[in-house]
Amino acid sequence: MSLWQQLEYAAAGTQRPLLEVLDALPWNDAGLIAAIAQQHDSGAVLMLAWMNRAALEETLTSGWACYWSRSRQQLWRKGATSGHRQRLISAHLDCDGDALLLRVAQHGGACHTGRASCFYHTLDQHGLTVNCAAPSHEGSANG
Amino acid sequence: MSLWQQLEYAAAGTQRPLLEVLDALPWNDAGLIAAIAQQHDSGAVLMLAWMNRAALEETLTSGWACYWSRSRQQLWRKGATSGHRQRLISAHLDCDGDALLLRVAQHGGACHTGRASCFYHTLDQHGLTVNCAAPSHEGSANG
Repeated sequence: MSLWQQLEYAAAGTQRPLLEVLDALPWNDAGLIAAIAQQHDSGAVLMLAWMNRAALEETLTSGWACYWSRSRQQLWRKGATSGHRQRLISAHLDCDGDALLLRVAQHGGACHTGRASCFYHTLDQHGLTVNCAAPSHEGSANG
Repeated sequence: MSLWQQLEYAAAGTQRPLLEVLDALPWNDAGLIAAIAQQHDSGAVLMLAWMNRAALEETLTSGWACYWSRSRQQLWRKGATSGHRQRLISAHLDCDGDALLLRVAQHGGACHTGRASCFYHTLDQHGLTVNCAAPSHEGSANG
């Protein structure tokens, strides 16, 4: 029985040490886990990114979101160049351990286009609509 | 230039037909896209699941969340057996088209353990804590 199954009906307050958790995480074939970033006070979902073990450890210890950039194949300290950093408020794992939810305090826009959230397209049965324009080209920042 | 790059600085209200969007989505190697489900009124993040093209098309046309079950390798009409269905309020795509945000009205608990959300573990530099107990074994339902 996996750690996740053991914990499904555990009492509230049950704890497990970080090393055991990191060893038990079902990292995908690329060694990554999906991480949702949510603005802690408004509840706005800001972005979906990915973390490897090093990124997750750094995020938990530093208190600032650090992802794994799949395009650049390196640690991505969110906002290191743009200043659009994410201070970690709390981190949560889902029932089968394959997704993270980070509640963060976002500095500036989360999206590389400068928008507050990356989810600026609306989709329905007819197609896509761009919901809001980017603040400006100058406002854009690569992460 | 990809559709997503074309749309980064498009005017608000710019539209694209669904077929073009579905053809342009960067489906992963398994033909899937990640989908975050969020309770539309409270903002609570409920779960992260996956959709293939058929699941996404069904969700948009039926107005009820349908995912792709990676474990069962079949369409997963959320709540078909448990009654814990998700009525779609709105769907959103992110800036590079590789993640969906579904704002839903959740019937019952989103989690198979019966909890409202799958994200019931808190994680910090010391380890994991189970935040809340499952309602009951009887309350559990497989999706």
